[in-house]
Amino acid sequence: MINTLYLPELREMLADSSETDLREFCTALHPARTAEFMEGLSADETWRVLKYADLPLREEIFTFFSPETQLDILSTQDRGEVSELIVELAADDRVDLLEELGGDIVDEILPLLPSEVRREVLRLWAYPEDSAGAVMTTEAAKLSEVLTVKEALDELSKQSESLETIYYLYIVDDTDHLRGLVSARELISAIGKPQTTLGELMETDLVSADVLEDQEEVAQKVARYDLLAIPVVDHEHRMLGIITHDDVIDVVREEATEDAHRIAAVEPLEGSYLTTPIFTLTWKRGMWLTILFVAAFLTAFALRHYEDGLKTWVWLAWFLPLIISTGGNSGNQAATLVITSLALGDVSVRDWLRVVVREVAMGLLLGGFLGALGYAAAWGSGLAPGAAAAAVIPITLLLIVIAGTLLGAVLPLLFQRVGLDPALMSSPFVAGIIDILGIVIYMNVAFAILYR
Amino acid sequence: MINTLYLPELREMLADSSETDLREFCTALHPARTAEFMEGLSADETWRVLKYADLPLREEIFTFFSPETQLDILSTQDRGEVSELIVELAADDRVDLLEELGGDIVDEILPLLPSEVRREVLRLWAYPEDSAGAVMTTEAAKLSEVLTVKEALDELSKQSESLETIYYLYIVDDTDHLRGLVSARELISAIGKPQTTLGELMETDLVSADVLEDQEEVAQKVARYDLLAIPVVDHEHRMLGIITHDDVIDVVREEATEDAHRIAAVEPLEGSYLTTPIFTLTWKRGMWLTILFVAAFLTAFALRHYEDGLKTWVWLAWFLPLIISTGGNSGNQAATLVITSLALGDVSVRDWLRVVVREVAMGLLLGGFLGALGYAAAWGSGLAPGAAAAAVIPITLLLIVIAGTLLGAVLPLLFQRVGLDPALMSSPFVAGIIDILGIVIYMNVAFAILYR
Repeated sequence: MINTLYLPELREMLADSSETDLREFCTALHPARTAEFMEGLSADETWRVLKYADLPLREEIFTFFSPETQLDILSTQDRGEVSELIVELAADDRVDLLEELGGDIVDEILPLLPSEVRREVLRLWAYPEDSAGAVMTTEAAKLSEVLTVKEALDELSKQSESLETIYYLYIVDDTDHLRGLVSARELISAIGKPQTTLGELMETDLVSADVLEDQEEVAQKVARYDLLAIPVVDHEHRMLGIITHDDVIDVVREEATEDAHRIAAVEPLEGSYLTTPIFTLTWKRGMWLTILFVAAFLTAFALRHYEDGLKTWVWLAWFLPLIISTGGNSGNQAATLVITSLALGDVSVRDWLRVVVREVAMGLLLGGFLGALGYAAAWGSGLAPGAAAAAVIPITLLLIVIAGTLLGAVLPLLFQRVGLDPALMSSPFVAGIIDILGIVIYMNVAFAILYR
Repeated sequence: MINTLYLPELREMLADSSETDLREFCTALHPARTAEFMEGLSADETWRVLKYADLPLREEIFTFFSPETQLDILSTQDRGEVSELIVELAADDRVDLLEELGGDIVDEILPLLPSEVRREVLRLWAYPEDSAGAVMTTEAAKLSEVLTVKEALDELSKQSESLETIYYLYIVDDTDHLRGLVSARELISAIGKPQTTLGELMETDLVSADVLEDQEEVAQKVARYDLLAIPVVDHEHRMLGIITHDDVIDVVREEATEDAHRIAAVEPLEGSYLTTPIFTLTWKRGMWLTILFVAAFLTAFALRHYEDGLKTWVWLAWFLPLIISTGGNSGNQAATLVITSLALGDVSVRDWLRVVVREVAMGLLLGGFLGALGYAAAWGSGLAPGAAAAAVIPITLLLIVIAGTLLGAVLPLLFQRVGLDPALMSSPFVAGIIDILGIVIYMNVAFAILYR
């Protein structure tokens, strides 16, 4: 959403180069709102306005632009000037942006960065996508346990500008091994005893994330322990960085959206719906639609196989969509419940037997009820020729609903077990399998009853 | 997941009433881990162990139990003792728990609470479910702008135990009107100038939430502005409480899961999958399955309507599942994309025209491709009798895919427009409509081509 309210005024200020007004505009509001008001400007105009803000504020406003605007500015404006801004960015945001920029522009910008920043970019770059290392930032407060409360407060006061969070102080030894944690809350509580050392205050039973751990698991930990930030360590428990609460909210939203898209058989988007090019979106949907289409084509062969039966009892065809939809819907429900429970950590693969028992029980209850309903409707409506023939419908419904709940629950668990994303076992995929199974069940039940 | 590793030892300590060991157990670990190790104990045993922890620690461990364990303890243990614990809880957790407990037990506990706590419970209780008021807590740091940095730090140091977060200090006037905000980071940076007042430090352009605002919108704000907490105000901008980052993560997870369930036509669960009783779960799935079943039953009538045509060209029935699945899948994709984009705030109802244009374009591309594939397959496989007859398949596929993408995108937008949850326009619901539409399109296309 673009807020166009202030655009004419802003453009006028730029035309007049009225420094006081533009400085005032940059500083008066919350940086997020300043950014919102600028979203309608071109990259050139935006950059000209931003120059009226000091570098730290400029960086803050910049972080609130949409990814598209950010990339637009970085790729079109003066390389020297944008690299100053890039140095100012948090290490995790910096790496993400450079990765998006890609190619030639990065090759031009990297040499302009101070060597320690460049080295850090390359190091963070090396971590696999979606790992804790790829999301973490390196600007954490790392202090020695011999510092006193007073020294620690002074140190924090000095460093606070450059740190991503000052709310947790991590206590490390000379070689950065993580030893403990003091929260700013505990530090402030201890203001009355300024000579206490951090070593005395620190908690040593810490929750941490391995640098290669999946970001979804890390987000689960942060949510479970109600943390503001989680330290990221290597296999020797050396502290490499932290992941903060705001990044965790982003990860949670991103992963939930990815799962929802996978469940609907859409390859997860990288940007938002409206900004993804139509051809990209078509590809991300088309590849799965095509796979499902090929699978669904098998149903045509399955049905031809039963050609004679369908010619004799044409009424069987009336119920075909009802039966495969009902099987698909019950499988869809089970698959979504299991996939979201796995994502929330409520269910693990070890619970498979409990899940199976529950789903069979629910398949019996749901299939039994829908079967009774289907029998009454098939017979009552006169669509099925007689009470005996109508019995085909409830028996098929009971079987197909049990098959649906069972497959919908088991297939995601199986995918999780072999290390694949359970959401890949999407609802349409489950429904596709059930389509074919449904036809086979339906025709066999029908022939068993009707040929007697 | 229950960690049974320490259960025998814990039970032995209880049998021996070995105070030193039990105190050690309660204090040595992170409270979340202590809670984990106790999850296998009965409510009686858990409560006996907890008594070895001081009240603040006891409360902290308690908050990490599963909701079921918490309710079990509160409803079975001594009312006087549990009300001490309840007083200690954060105001938002306290209200949630009492609400879950319900009925007689609450009536027994309420009179045992101090009157100001009781009044607060009743006040928070009055806010509608899922509103900011229902999620907020009242323990925020509220200070006057005349305080100096030094005075503020001392005040915080004193209050820190009872506050939910000390990381944002809210500046209010005598009648609690919200005037500004000073972060603990800014406070600590200003330690060198202890006589600065909070009024000089504070930011006045604040992001706040209205007490009746929907929790999902509040979560979107917190994520958008990267906040640690958001103040909740009434219509006169009086500060009523705050919502903190950990509650926001819970809201984001809860809302995403609810949406995923609605999309799959499951009435959202209150607890987790494994703890929801089977009959509750059957009801939450069964009600939607039944509605969809009734809708799907209409397809049987639709098909009977075309009885003669289907008897003449039996091969048309072979492709029935393929056509309705493909329409359903394309609708499913569009609906999920639009529903998740609405939830993330990426798309709003005002964008409807852009969404429609995109979906029609994608419907043409996807339908065109699948149509070509379908024509080749229908004719090549010999399932359709001849090249001319096979043309029924691609034309139907093109039309049904466009109908699917269009309906899948428009129906959730329509629901959002009239104030209903767009996720209610679930994928199976869209698919159900497309089933009937698909049959009508298919048969009309077929008769138009074949009767020539």
